[in-house]
Parts: sequence; structure tokens; C-alpha cells
Amino acid sequence: MTLGNHKRTSNGSIIGQIATTEVPRFAAPGTFGLVPDFREVTRADVGILGVPFDSTVSYRPGARFGPEHIRNSSRLLRPYNPEADKWPFLGQQVADLGDVAFNPYDISKALNSIEYAVSQAMEFAPKNLILGGDHSISLPVLRALAKKHGPVSVIHFDAHLDTWDTYFDQPYLHGTPFRRAAEEGLLDPEGCTHVGTRGGLYGNTDMLEDQALGFMTIRCHELHLDGVQVAIERIKQRVLDRPTYISVDIDVLDPAYAPGTGTPEPGGMASWQLLHIIRSLSGLNIIGGDIMEVAPAYDHAEITGFAAAHVGYELLSAWAPIPSHGEMKTR
Amino acid sequence: MTLGNHKRTSNGSIIGQIATTEVPRFAAPGTFGLVPDFREVTRADVGILGVPFDSTVSYRPGARFGPEHIRNSSRLLRPYNPEADKWPFLGQQVADLGDVAFNPYDISKALNSIEYAVSQAMEFAPKNLILGGDHSISLPVLRALAKKHGPVSVIHFDAHLDTWDTYFDQPYLHGTPFRRAAEEGLLDPEGCTHVGTRGGLYGNTDMLEDQALGFMTIRCHELHLDGVQVAIERIKQRVLDRPTYISVDIDVLDPAYAPGTGTPEPGGMASWQLLHIIRSLSGLNIIGGDIMEVAPAYDHAEITGFAAAHVGYELLSAWAPIPSHGEMKTR
Amino acid sequence: MTLGNHKRTSNGSIIGQIATTEVPRFAAPGTFGLVPDFREVTRADVGILGVPFDSTVSYRPGARFGPEHIRNSSRLLRPYNPEADKWPFLGQQVADLGDVAFNPYDISKALNSIEYAVSQAMEFAPKNLILGGDHSISLPVLRALAKKHGPVSVIHFDAHLDTWDTYFDQPYLHGTPFRRAAEEGLLDPEGCTHVGTRGGLYGNTDMLEDQALGFMTIRCHELHLDGVQVAIERIKQRVLDRPTYISVDIDVLDPAYAPGTGTPEPGGMASWQLLHIIRSLSGLNIIGGDIMEVAPAYDHAEITGFAAAHVGYELLSAWAPIPSHGEMKTR
Amino acid sequence: MTLGNHKRTSNGSIIGQIATTEVPRFAAPGTFGLVPDFREVTRADVGILGVPFDSTVSYRPGARFGPEHIRNSSRLLRPYNPEADKWPFLGQQVADLGDVAFNPYDISKALNSIEYAVSQAMEFAPKNLILGGDHSISLPVLRALAKKHGPVSVIHFDAHLDTWDTYFDQPYLHGTPFRRAAEEGLLDPEGCTHVGTRGGLYGNTDMLEDQALGFMTIRCHELHLDGVQVAIERIKQRVLDRPTYISVDIDVLDPAYAPGTGTPEPGGMASWQLLHIIRSLSGLNIIGGDIMEVAPAYDHAEITGFAAAHVGYELLSAWAPIPSHGEMKTR
Amino acid sequence: MTLGNHKRTSNGSIIGQIATTEVPRFAAPGTFGLVPDFREVTRADVGILGVPFDSTVSYRPGARFGPEHIRNSSRLLRPYNPEADKWPFLGQQVADLGDVAFNPYDISKALNSIEYAVSQAMEFAPKNLILGGDHSISLPVLRALAKKHGPVSVIHFDAHLDTWDTYFDQPYLHGTPFRRAAEEGLLDPEGCTHVGTRGGLYGNTDMLEDQALGFMTIRCHELHLDGVQVAIERIKQRVLDRPTYISVDIDVLDPAYAPGTGTPEPGGMASWQLLHIIRSLSGLNIIGGDIMEVAPAYDHAEITGFAAAHVGYELLSAWAPIPSHGEMKTR
Amino acid sequence: MTLGNHKRTSNGSIIGQIATTEVPRFAAPGTFGLVPDFREVTRADVGILGVPFDSTVSYRPGARFGPEHIRNSSRLLRPYNPEADKWPFLGQQVADLGDVAFNPYDISKALNSIEYAVSQAMEFAPKNLILGGDHSISLPVLRALAKKHGPVSVIHFDAHLDTWDTYFDQPYLHGTPFRRAAEEGLLDPEGCTHVGTRGGLYGNTDMLEDQALGFMTIRCHELHLDGVQVAIERIKQRVLDRPTYISVDIDVLDPAYAPGTGTPEPGGMASWQLLHIIRSLSGLNIIGGDIMEVAPAYDHAEITGFAAAHVGYELLSAWAPIPSHGEMKTR
Repeated sequence: MTLGNHKRTSNGSIIGQIATTEVPRFAAPGTFGLVPDFREVTRADVGILGVPFDSTVSYRPGARFGPEHIRNSSRLLRPYNPEADKWPFLGQQVADLGDVAFNPYDISKALNSIEYAVSQAMEFAPKNLILGGDHSISLPVLRALAKKHGPVSVIHFDAHLDTWDTYFDQPYLHGTPFRRAAEEGLLDPEGCTHVGTRGGLYGNTDMLEDQALGFMTIRCHELHLDGVQVAIERIKQRVLDRPTYISVDIDVLDPAYAPGTGTPEPGGMASWQLLHIIRSLSGLNIIGGDIMEVAPAYDHAEITGFAAAHVGYELLSAWAPIPSHGEMKTR
Repeated sequence: MTLGNHKRTSNGSIIGQIATTEVPRFAAPGTFGLVPDFREVTRADVGILGVPFDSTVSYRPGARFGPEHIRNSSRLLRPYNPEADKWPFLGQQVADLGDVAFNPYDISKALNSIEYAVSQAMEFAPKNLILGGDHSISLPVLRALAKKHGPVSVIHFDAHLDTWDTYFDQPYLHGTPFRRAAEEGLLDPEGCTHVGTRGGLYGNTDMLEDQALGFMTIRCHELHLDGVQVAIERIKQRVLDRPTYISVDIDVLDPAYAPGTGTPEPGGMASWQLLHIIRSLSGLNIIGGDIMEVAPAYDHAEITGFAAAHVGYELLSAWAPIPSHGEMKTR
Repeated sequence: MTLGNHKRTSNGSIIGQIATTEVPRFAAPGTFGLVPDFREVTRADVGILGVPFDSTVSYRPGARFGPEHIRNSSRLLRPYNPEADKWPFLGQQVADLGDVAFNPYDISKALNSIEYAVSQAMEFAPKNLILGGDHSISLPVLRALAKKHGPVSVIHFDAHLDTWDTYFDQPYLHGTPFRRAAEEGLLDPEGCTHVGTRGGLYGNTDMLEDQALGFMTIRCHELHLDGVQVAIERIKQRVLDRPTYISVDIDVLDPAYAPGTGTPEPGGMASWQLLHIIRSLSGLNIIGGDIMEVAPAYDHAEITGFAAAHVGYELLSAWAPIPSHGEMKTR
Repeated sequence: MTLGNHKRTSNGSIIGQIATTEVPRFAAPGTFGLVPDFREVTRADVGILGVPFDSTVSYRPGARFGPEHIRNSSRLLRPYNPEADKWPFLGQQVADLGDVAFNPYDISKALNSIEYAVSQAMEFAPKNLILGGDHSISLPVLRALAKKHGPVSVIHFDAHLDTWDTYFDQPYLHGTPFRRAAEEGLLDPEGCTHVGTRGGLYGNTDMLEDQALGFMTIRCHELHLDGVQVAIERIKQRVLDRPTYISVDIDVLDPAYAPGTGTPEPGGMASWQLLHIIRSLSGLNIIGGDIMEVAPAYDHAEITGFAAAHVGYELLSAWAPIPSHGEMKTR
Repeated sequence: MTLGNHKRTSNGSIIGQIATTEVPRFAAPGTFGLVPDFREVTRADVGILGVPFDSTVSYRPGARFGPEHIRNSSRLLRPYNPEADKWPFLGQQVADLGDVAFNPYDISKALNSIEYAVSQAMEFAPKNLILGGDHSISLPVLRALAKKHGPVSVIHFDAHLDTWDTYFDQPYLHGTPFRRAAEEGLLDPEGCTHVGTRGGLYGNTDMLEDQALGFMTIRCHELHLDGVQVAIERIKQRVLDRPTYISVDIDVLDPAYAPGTGTPEPGGMASWQLLHIIRSLSGLNIIGGDIMEVAPAYDHAEITGFAAAHVGYELLSAWAPIPSHGEMKTR
Repeated sequence: MTLGNHKRTSNGSIIGQIATTEVPRFAAPGTFGLVPDFREVTRADVGILGVPFDSTVSYRPGARFGPEHIRNSSRLLRPYNPEADKWPFLGQQVADLGDVAFNPYDISKALNSIEYAVSQAMEFAPKNLILGGDHSISLPVLRALAKKHGPVSVIHFDAHLDTWDTYFDQPYLHGTPFRRAAEEGLLDPEGCTHVGTRGGLYGNTDMLEDQALGFMTIRCHELHLDGVQVAIERIKQRVLDRPTYISVDIDVLDPAYAPGTGTPEPGGMASWQLLHIIRSLSGLNIIGGDIMEVAPAYDHAEITGFAAAHVGYELLSAWAPIPSHGEMKTR
């Protein structure tokens, strides 16, 4: 039986992307980066897990359609990353784990479902990239990670601190995951940092409270004025070799680069800055990552989706082994 | 291992849609109507085959993204069709066969790949719904069908005749499939009909030539003036119990209803008219069907996608067995 | 002090729309139909109350931005309705009551807030038009109405029945308000009707259960085939002179006419059909009305907003007194 | 020298559209219907004149980009109109006269420039199709026509009456052209009619005043309820064989069919209704026509543009001679 | 009576934004930054005045919908500005003054109405932020300001000089306000500057003439090459402590950051650059400001609106008093 | 006869743009930059040739509508370029040569048609700016140029190398023009360079192979980190005074700046960087240039179109003679 457009590299191995020399990219199945579906493999080095949950957003909803959108936009990713000199899809087994199922009307239950799914994913693949969904998702992910790794460092790219306390009496929201995580002891208070924060706050104590939770902050105008290299150094010195989680709210990008999100904030990063910083962190001890708050109803021409897909590409590249440097071409 | 959002009806059977009471529709995998992927079943009664080929369009391109778009928009389809009193997903095994792979730069090779894939699909499932792609695809589908069924009747919903001869010396184009099919003896010259044709032609002989190829025509203004019931009767009397292929160019709908297409033609059908007519043809001997020319770059709010998905829903309903009428509810 | 663009009709009365001969419509404050803000008057005959609540939607979210969107699109409404021979803004005191405040993360609390706000509104103005928001809102509105009027008839324009039971264990959702209302005894079981229903269901018992709750149904294809006059007669004979609530889910319109909604369903009504039917019901004993499920992120060119605003215009016209027929012009 | 994509029919004649068998439609120069630019011919039977003037609109501006937009959307028009059995581009010499130049900041001067340009156009081609621009343009067109033909009948397709008096003290606006025309004696008071009027007015005297100016009205709901044939008969009996001007405000279509306009009004016509009525008027003594109020910034997928282009196609077909009925094909 | 969603800070004071902990931001009334409507207070420190006038634009119209759009996008602004260490809404009484009413068909009359309204506004609040509308509006604003302050310095952020002379014989246009202002003696010829100018001119004398009118120019490529700090210093040294008006044409941003405008010019500023420069000018003697040329029909995902709202936020922050630095949090 | 909106500068000369002081820009004919149509002049210094060919794209199609779109967006270009101190339209005779006609279904034939048309264009005007269309077009352009100039240097602005070998067995594609050109000896192997390259490759040998074909590469992150001046110097030192062709794939810009393209790649250039670099190359020996891959279906608010038009403006400015520096103004 030869049905289906699932052909992969010629040697029959399931590793790598679909054979794009035989299957047009627009004909390929909708996994992230055209990697195998988890049912095609028995284990993986890296899993991609979608979490289409957006019940806690405070303004423009729609991040529930984020995972599908990022996957669609990831079809243009190619096998070799020259800046990193890595093969993110061929140097390691990557698999798309599908989406988590959950109860969209019960935040607590949903967070539990997500935590459970992430734990399952970690059994299938030691490292996972989570595609949101709204930022409340990072909490159950950190719970699952901390169970295995203990308190972790977080490098948090976001226009917002996401360390608010409650809103309408609700503790588990897209603006609060890192306060909850800190309170639950999931974070290493010496190793966390925000990058790209900007815009208004609810009080002049917000930054102090945030600092008390264990975060350093590189505000976005600092990054623009001082340059990305300074930021990279500050981040590296903050997290050192701690087990580190990279959490990317796509709204860390300026709305010009990422219109498809729920609480856009002008003055943000350019896509090259974000991609370059993440690429430069590849030597760190990264144990997981996420890309959050992509809301496709507000995207156009998929530009937010493409940016998010490339963030994922750089994270996968960070995880890929350094190649033995023989020459290789895939077409 | 419980990874993944692929749970189906509680009895463990793979038949039917994903369990939408446990998996939010926006978290479901991207198969048409949330049915199983072909790899989850060993055979099917009905296959859904995507053909993202649009190399022969003459104006606005982009139908290559049609299959994915229709699948996305089909996630809202529900199990019971009350107008038809049918269970399109539960009364029969439906499976999504993925997309055909082909060479997008060589029309002849691509049409051959499509014909071969359809033949394979027909071994997997006796009836198939083809999601295009541009209308040139209907030719290889008819080739595959005629091999098995002999010359077939075609009920062709389209703003255009698609029986042009050549354009820029090319015989195999989205405006020519039914002339080629007639020339190749794939059509029953007593049993074909166009429905919804309108707009300008290249000559006052076009209709005569078309008639000579075996087509009756219900022009769109006739349908508007005489009503759908007259059209239904005319179609039924034309095709009788012949093996019949239903080919739907989404541009048979007015651009208000289907903006996402390549050669829109005002004056077209309303979606209720198209859906009602197809629903009324369910007693015919339908051996296959297609939905063509959905070009998502020109769609908005998925309205073209939803219309196309519902056309598919009515076709699947036509194929579903008449239920034994015990009461059943799925949630 | 003459600041502001709030001038109204020349006689100084606050009744009526802003003076559009002196204030360009695009410069007018954003009340529905340019009527006074509730703070400008001490009471009203008709109140307009926004409820930007959409926490219970099951697919595309965003109806939280509906009230603002409908108000924007209502700025083109003019004072005299010739088909109805009514002055909807001048024949009665209309006032915009602003939006309800609520907890978006707690469905039960939010429904209580809405019920309380509607009760307050009913003290300010005996009749109210509710702008949603998602359709779960109709339940607290009916609770407030039934307290005053006893069980009411509902004329429910919608592609869907909205009498589902639960979904993910939640009883109060945008698909369940009328089942809950029936269970709570808020509905007159002899006088309710759905209009425009279409598309798939979850079981072949759905219609039976719905009927048992007290609803007649005019399915959308019946309306298309039999014409609006038959529907109007059937509705009138169903509700007679009972106190009647008109609930309009904008998705009763075809997606071509109302793309800006969360669960679009092809095969729907044209805007003229909906407006004509509502206009024809003006003699009924209408005690309240709502317009639900306008999701602006999926609208374009405000066409959904304009349709919704005109639905409101016909409802206000139904409530306006029959004029004494002296000649009047407002510009 | 063979530069350029301006090849026409093989016999070297300049008549007709560009040779679409040699020039892809998307490569063709941007004249209406791919006809010659006026500089390529010395006279014409029919001229197409763009008037990108929108300084008098009262709500959403942007009809200044209408002529260009309609021309773009007219590239899909084909040579033979089967419903009419006419060759609109080959049966007569059609030429695109370009756009009028005018002072956009001085309404009176602009109207004079337009009148002068139309007069010039009438010397070049006896019949002209005017592409607007806003509806104030119809006044100078009627001035130019009346100079030659005396008072004319107007068949006015529009959601609005356009016989308002003044607005902000300005007499020459897109809501007033036909009152001014009547006052100036340009209209035959026995032969004018509105078609498709709907929505609110400024007073219950508006219709009476309108009637006094010489207009019959077929309101849009009448057209929907009685059908197009009744309307066609009423129009024909109204205008008889008087010299008749057909003025089409694209907002006569429902916003679903024509979102790209400035003052949309739900409840409108479907495109097939408008096209069928205009087609059915081809035997009248039509001396000119216009298509107004296409505002591309609010269009999507060009659907408003395509509708407008087809209105023009039917008007050109009305003017084309009845063919001698030899067979002809152009490809 | 507790109707309405107008609750503010708990102490009952009307100062500050609506209580966003009780009123979801999407439920809040549409004032700029959720501040009080002018009718709720008797005076203010800062007024926000909308001027939806766009009758003088030369290319894409639609800035008439700018004030409403900016207000909508301002709902995400939060109370504390950490970069500035200011409380723009709580440190001072801000009030939304609504929109100016004017005659859209008579430029001179409209400018007079605007000047009068601004004078009135200045009696209500000493400082005002004007939301346009097209740039011609700056002239009447400067007239009103100069009456009180004498000739003022202008810091003019714009892609264009706006010191053209006339166009189609009209002197008062969106390209001419600062030439007129200079001619009328409203500007301090030693203290004006353009920032961000780029793109083509009508002559090589334009810059000389502009200089003669009193303007220094920081062209946009200089700003990109030299960095924002150099620009900030140059601006500060130019205006010193003169009474200064900050006029921001949103097209000073690159079209990527501000697509929603009428005459976009590539090569522009990033939003962070604009926001940072304005923030850095907070110590100047700013007597008023405006944000012009936001044309929502060309915006998407509100990105232009958000950028404009944040420009307003920084201007309000500049006016807010330096806090006494006790800790304060608003949620 | 004074029909038409084709007036140019007052002295009657055909040189220069249309008289924008008499013809509103939105009323102007659709030539690039409002220059004359080639039929209005007998020769030109610079020709603008559209090539609406996109049959070789590998992902999102639609660049066939690129030339028309760029021309539309070029209507805002003004006569004097102050950064360059050049008069691109008045200092030299520019003419719009229309679009090439070709067979869209036969790549080889189409490339031949394009080469022939470019050769013809070179007889009409020694220098030409080509508007694509997809990047395969650069090959026939280089063939025509090399016939006259011998092997040329190429400065290639693009996210991609475009030196792939084949794809689906096809050698002539939008990803291969410069490999083919090198193989055919059309390129000077000492003088070619890529600028702005980024994103994934198919193998770690791609860069080596590319280098062997004669290209230096300035990857995009280098440009961001090192600044534009370093890049300008490297480019100049690479090409020296060789005859040089500048080929601009609009996707060299970040998707934020150029969403309207087929294979967007985040991390790209800002528009000011691209425009500044091209402007700085004006002293080179530029013999031709192109702007490719503008796909309007994915553009919004014309921002991609405006960017492309300005790239053309800088190229034309490079070709314009250095003015004698007398003062000149055109309005």
C-alpha cells in the first residue's frame, strides 16, 4: 500500500522531515516541521506538543488556534541550520505529539490535563517544545519539569512580566504563571530572567515583587539601546549551567512582527533579535521550551506563524547534536 | 501510552469522528470531519483524498492550499445529518487518505500521479471524495473511475463549462477536464449535466460544442428563476441510475458565498441552494465526488472553507446507509 | 460650556439621536443608534445593554467585542423606518445603558452579574435590547424577564438549537441556554419556536428532546423553500399574544452575510429574510430581545455589524408607537 | 517594434479585447474589459470613463480608488455574453477613456470638470459608461446628457434615494444628485424610478418629496417578495422608450455581495438579481450608465469589484448590436 | 442606581482609569485610556479631544475613523509607566472630551470649528492631546495654542515635511499646516524641528524653504544611522525650554509598524524608537500634542492603533507629576 | 481633443511624471511612477518592464499580480530624491514598457519570451528595471544582459541563495536562476554577492557550492550585527566597477515589512536598511535591476508594494544624472 504523502529520507529511516523532493511542502501532512507523527515512531529525542488552551486570556482570545497555525507555518523549515551548524530534524529524532485534550471550561482541570500530558510526553521524549495556547500553560509544564529536574531557571521572553497575582480572584491566568511557579518552588530564584519586558504596569511595586520572585529583567528598551550581545551575556551569566526552560510569548516581538496575539505591546523586538538571542543560547542546559500566545485570527499572511515556527526551529537546533561535519546534502 | 488527542467513540471502535466530548474541536487532528487517518484503519467505505495541485489555473492561483483549508473548516461537522436522516461518519467507515504527492512543474506527470493515487484510494475505499486543487484534477479522477465503472455520468456544479479545448497550446487545464474526459470516452454522453453555469464565453459555439460532448446545462439564472426543485428534477431525469460523479467547483457559489476561489463569477448560487440540491440527489448512484478550486488566500473568516466542508458533508451523507432508526445520541 | 459632540434635536429634548445634521456620524459618540447615554436621561422606554461575555463559546471566540462592534455599525441608522412607518428613536425614549461588568473566569458568577444588571436595566427601561456576547447570556436575561412576566415565549433565530444538555460537564454554555431556561420554567412550552435551524446534530433524538422542551422548529431549508410569509404565519400562530422574547443569534444568517461569528453554518438566511420576518412580527407582545454571537475578529467591512445593527433597528421599531402620521422630517 | 502586451484579434483590427490566447489576463494592460486605450483608436461606439472623485461621501470614504479597482476586476470578462446573445466588445468599438482629472478640494469645480470631460467623451463615443467615484458624479453626467438628449429617464439602482436636499449646507453631495437633477430639469418626471431602496429615512415626507421629483420606487423588500420579473415589468412600463440613463450604486447589492462601499445597507439585492434585471432592460433606449460607490479599501477578494465589472458587462451588452448569428469563436 | 460599567478606583474618586479589576477591559466604555468622560468631571489637567476630520488628505482617506480607533486600542494601557516612573492617569486628572463636530464639506469652516473647540478644551483642561484626523488639524490647534502661549516650538514627527504651499489651489491641507502656521506667526522660528522625514520631494528647494520657515530636520536615515540618543540631544538643544507642541503623524513609523495611514513611506522608524524619543522629551515644556493620520481601514490587528495609543501614553506620562515614590499598586 | 488624464510638465515635454498638480495621484494612469507609457515616447533612458510570471514558485503563488501591484503603489513617488540629490523621473527619460506576454504553462517557452522581450526593451531603453513575477525571471534577464555586456556582477538581495540545482527534476525555477546563470557563464565569478541571506538550507554544502559559483555572502544576521555601512563597503569592494545587475527579492525584507511574498523568512532586513544600501550603491556601474516575488494576495495595506516601489525609486535614482544644481521645484 503506497497511499499517503508520508515518504521520508531515502534510506527508509523515519527520522527527519518528509521527503520534500518528492512531496511538495504544501502537500505535506501538518506536523511541525514535517517531522513524523508520534504514532510513526516508538520514541523521540524531542517532542512537539500542542496545547490549544486559551481560557485564561484577558483581552483578545483565539490562541486556541495557535498550535495548528504554527504547524502550518513550519512547513517551510529546511533541514540544515547554517547559523547554528546543526541539523535540527536529522541530528535527532523529533516527533509531533499532537495536541493535549482538556476541559476548556474548567481552568484547574485543564491545567491538570496539561501537566499530565506533558509528563507523558517526557516519557516519550526527554525534551519537549510546547506550542500554546495562552501563557497559563507554562505553569503545568513547569510543574512536570520540576518533578524531574527540581527547580529550574526560566528565560522568559515576553512583553509582560506574567508575575501578576490574581485577576477577578483567579490565580491561574495567562498573566500569573511565573508567580505561581515561584510560589510552588518550581523556579530557581537565582536563575530566572525576563527579556523584552515593556509597557505599563499596575503599580510601582510590580518590579520589586517580581525581583523577589527570582527574576532579573532586561527591559526591551535596554535591549534596543545596548544591543543583543549585551543581553546575551547578561542572560548567560544569569542562568549559567542550570537546567533552563525557555518560554517565549510571541508578543515579545513588536506587533509589526507578531500582530497575531492577544495583548500586543508596541516598542517590541524585531524577529532577528529574538532569533539571534535564542540561537546564541544554544550552549545552555535547556530542558524544555514553549511558544505561546499566537492568536491566528489577528495574524495576516502568517507572519506571526512564521516567526513562531522559526523560534521553534532555533530551539530544536539548540538541542540537536553538533554534527561530525562530514558533508551532507538532502536534495 | 495515552499520548495524543485521537480518542474516538467510547466502544473503542475506530469508526466515527474523534470524541468531541473529550477533545475540543480546535484540539482535534486535522483530518476531514475529524475522521480517522488512513493509517488507523485497514480499509474504509469512503476515503477523503486531498490533491493540492493548482498548476493549471488561469487567473488567481492558490488552490494548492485548498485541501488543508477544507479540512480545517470541516472540524465543526457533527455526526447526525437531520435533513438527510443519515450518520455520515458513523454509518460507514470514513478515513482521511492524506494528500497526493506529485510534481508541480510537470502537468502530465502530476495528472498521472493523481490518477495512480486515486486508483490506490479506490482499493482502500470504494468511494472517494477528492479535495482539490484545481479542476484539471477531475480528469485523472475520471480516468481512474472509468477504468472500474466504464463511462460515467457527471453532475458538474460550476460557474464555467470546463469544456474548453486548449489554452496556450496546453490541453490539460482547469478549464478543459470535461472535454478531455469526453474525448477519452470517460463520460456517458447521455447523462452529463452542468449546473450553475453563467457569465461570458469565448464564442457562441461553446454551448453547441459542449452539448455535443454530452452535456445538458442548467444555467444559473434559470436555477434562480425556476427554483431548485425544477433543477433537481431535471438533473435526476438526466442521470437516472447511471454511475454518477458529482464534481463541485466552489465557484458555482456566488463570490459572496465563496470569495476564496480563482475565477469568481457574480450571479451565482447561494450556499443553501447548492447544499439542498446535492442533498436531494442522495438517491442517485453516486460513485465519487470532488470539491475543487478553493483558494484560501482569497477566503476570509473561512466562509469558503465552511461551504466546501458542508458540500463534502452532504456527499458523505448520500453515501451513508439509511439508519435502522433506533434512537442514538453521541453526547 | 459647549464641549462635546452630544447635540440632539433642536428643541432641546434629549430624546432621539444625536443631531446628525450638525455632527458627522463618524464624529458621534459610540452609543447604539446615536441615542443618549443612560447618564443623560433619568429613565427610558427602551434600554440597550451590552454584555461582552464570551467565556462559554465552543469554537471561535471573540464575541466579547460584539457590543462595541454593533454600536459602531449602528451609527448609520436613520430616524424614520419607512417599511414599519415608525420612528424608533424619536417615538420613544431609547438610552444606551453601557456594558455589564462581570467576572470572565467564573461562568456562574458572570451569569449572576448579568441577571442582576438586566434586572436593574428593567427598572430603568421596561424593554431592553441585549447585545452579546455569546448565547449563554440569554439564560440570565430570561431569568430576569420571567421574574416579572412569568414564563415567556421565545422566538429563537439561530442556526443551532441551543438546547444541548452539557458539554465538558458544564451546564451553562452558549449551546444550552434554552434547555436550562425550559428546565427552570422560564419558557412557555406552548409558545417557543426556533427559526433558521440547520446543519448537523449530535443525535437523532435532539429534535425530539427539543420538541419536548416546548419548541417548534422552522428549519432553514423550509424557510428557503416555502418563503418567508409562511414562516411569519407559523411564528405568529405559535406565539399568539404571549409575552415574547426574540433572541437572534447572528449565525442564523448565512456566513456570506455574517462571517463575524463563532460557529458559522452554510445554508443560512439572507439578511433581507431575517429583517423582513422580524419587521413582520412587530404586532406581537415583544417584551425583550437580544442579538448574540457577533465576533468582530472574523467580520470584514463591518458587514456582520451592520446586519446586527439593523436587527436591533427593527426590534426598536416594533416597540415604537404608531405615529399620529403628521408629516415630520428631521433634516 | 513588438514591445508591449497589446496584441488584439488576429485580423489586426483594434476592436475587441486584448488577445487573451496570447496574453495571460493577469499580464494585460489595465483597461476595462481589456479593450483598447482611447489613444489606440480614433473614435468609439462606447467609452469607459473613470471618475475617481469621492469628496462628497458622508461616511466611509475611498470610492476614489473605485475606477482602478473595477478595471482590475474586469479582466476576467469574456467576449461572448450567452444570456444576451451579444458580443459586447466585438460587436462594437469600445475604448477606455482613462480617468477625469479634477480638483478634489472644490466640489463645484470638480463637478464642472466632470461635466466637461463627459461632454468630451460624448464626442469621442456616443455612449459612455461612467465608473465612480461617489454618486454626486451622476449630476454632471446628467447635465452633459441632457444637453444632448433633453430630460432623461433615470433607472436608479441604489439602497438610498439620493434625493436628499442638503447636508451641512452643501447642495452637491452623494446623497443629492437626483434632487438637483430634477430641479435643473434634467429628468423626465414621468419616467424615473428607484430600484432596491431600503433602510431608514430622515422623515416620513422623504418618499413624498421623492415622488414629487418624478420617481417611482421599487423598494427592495418588494423586489424580494414579488420577484425580479415583476420589477422588470414595472421598470419597463415606467420608462417606455424614453432616453434612459441607468445609474447603479453598488450598495444596491447586499453588503454580503458588495462589502466594498461607503454606506452599506443590509437587506439588499443578490448579484444575480441585479445582473438579471439589467440584462432584461437591454431593449430600452439606454443613452448612458454609471457604476458608483465602489470603495476598495472595504472590499475583499475583489468581490465588489467583480460584481461592478459584470454590471458594466451587461450594460455594454445592452448596447452591442444583435449579432447576425453566424458562428464565431475567439479561441 | 448601579447601572453601567463606570466604576473607578475604590476611594470613589473619579480620577484614574475605570476599575479594571472589576470591569474587563473589553467591557469598558470607549474613552481614551479608560479615563472619565468629560461629563463626569468639572475640570481636568489633561483633555483628550478627537477630531475626526479628513477632508484634506491627498491619497488614501479614512483618518476620520482615527479617534475612535485609537480610543479602542488604548484600552490596554495600564496605570503605571515604569520607564518614566509616572502615573499618567492617576497622577493627574485626565478626561476624554469627545469629538469635535464640524462641517466636513467646508475646510475653512471646519478648521474654525476645530480651533474653537480646542479653545474650549483649553478652558476645561490646560493641556490637551488631539487625536486626528488628518494633519491639517494641527493648524487650528496651533492657532488656539498661540493665542495663549505666543509662538511655539514644534517637534514634528512625520515622514513628510508638511510645509508644502498649496495643492489644487487649496492652502489648508494635510501637507501644509506648518507653512501656514509659520506664515501666521504661530511658530518660534528658532525652535522647530522635523524628525523622521524621508522619501521624495517636489523640488530641491523644499528643504531650503522649510528651513526658512524655522525648521531643523532630522531625516529618518540619519536617525537610523546615528541612533536615537543623538536625535534626542539635537531635539532638546533645538527647543530648549520653549513652549513646545509635539505633533506626531503616525506615518513617521515605517508602514510595517503603521500600515493604517494614508500616505505610507517605507524606510521609517520602529515603534520603540518613536516611543523612546518621546519618553526622553518628558522634561521639556510641552504645552500640547497630537497624533494624526491614523486610517483604520488600512490597519490590521489594530497595530497602528496600539502604536498611536502608546504615543499618547508617553505624552500623558510626560505631563504627569513626578510621584512622591511611596509604593502603590492598583490591583 | 483633451480626453484623458495624461498631462505632464507644463513645457509640453513628455519627460517626467504626470502633472500631479492637475491630476490627483489616484486618478493617474497606472504606469510605474506615473511616467509615460512606452507608446507616448520613441525611446527612453530607462524602461520599466513587468513580467507577471510565477509558474515556478515552490510555496505560496501569486507573484503574477506583482507588476500591477508595484505600479499601483508607485503612484506616491515624488520627483526629487533628496537623499540622492537626484531627479529620477525628470533627469532622464523613463518609460513604462508594459508587461511581457508569455505561455504560463511552459517554463522554457516563457523564459524565452521573457529573454526576447528584455532584448527588445534594451533596444528601446539601455537600462531596464524588471518587475516580477518570480525569481526564475532573472535568468532570461541575465541572458539578455550578458549578450550585450558579457559576464556581469550580481548583487543579489534575498533571504535565499537561489543557487539550488533542481527541484522535482526542473532546472529552471525561482530557487535556481543564479546557478543556471553561473553555469551558462553569465556571471562574473569574482564579482557576485548575496545580501541578507538567512534561514535553513538543504545541506551544509550549499554554501560551499554557492561560493564555487562565484558568490560572496553577507548573511542577514551579520548585517544586523555589523551595520549597513560595513555591508556597503563589502559590496562595493566585491563588485568594483564591473557591470553590475541588482536583483532584489522582496523577501530579503522581514515578513513584517514585506508580508506579500511567497516564501517569507523571519529575521530579515528593515526597509530602511535595504533602501539605504541600494542608495549607497548609486556610484556603481549598474546595468540593470529587478524586483521580484511580490505576491499581492498576501500583502495588506500595500506595504509590500510601497517597499518594492521605493526600491525601484532608488534604482532609478542611481541611474539619473547628477543635477546641475540649479534650483527647481515642480509645484
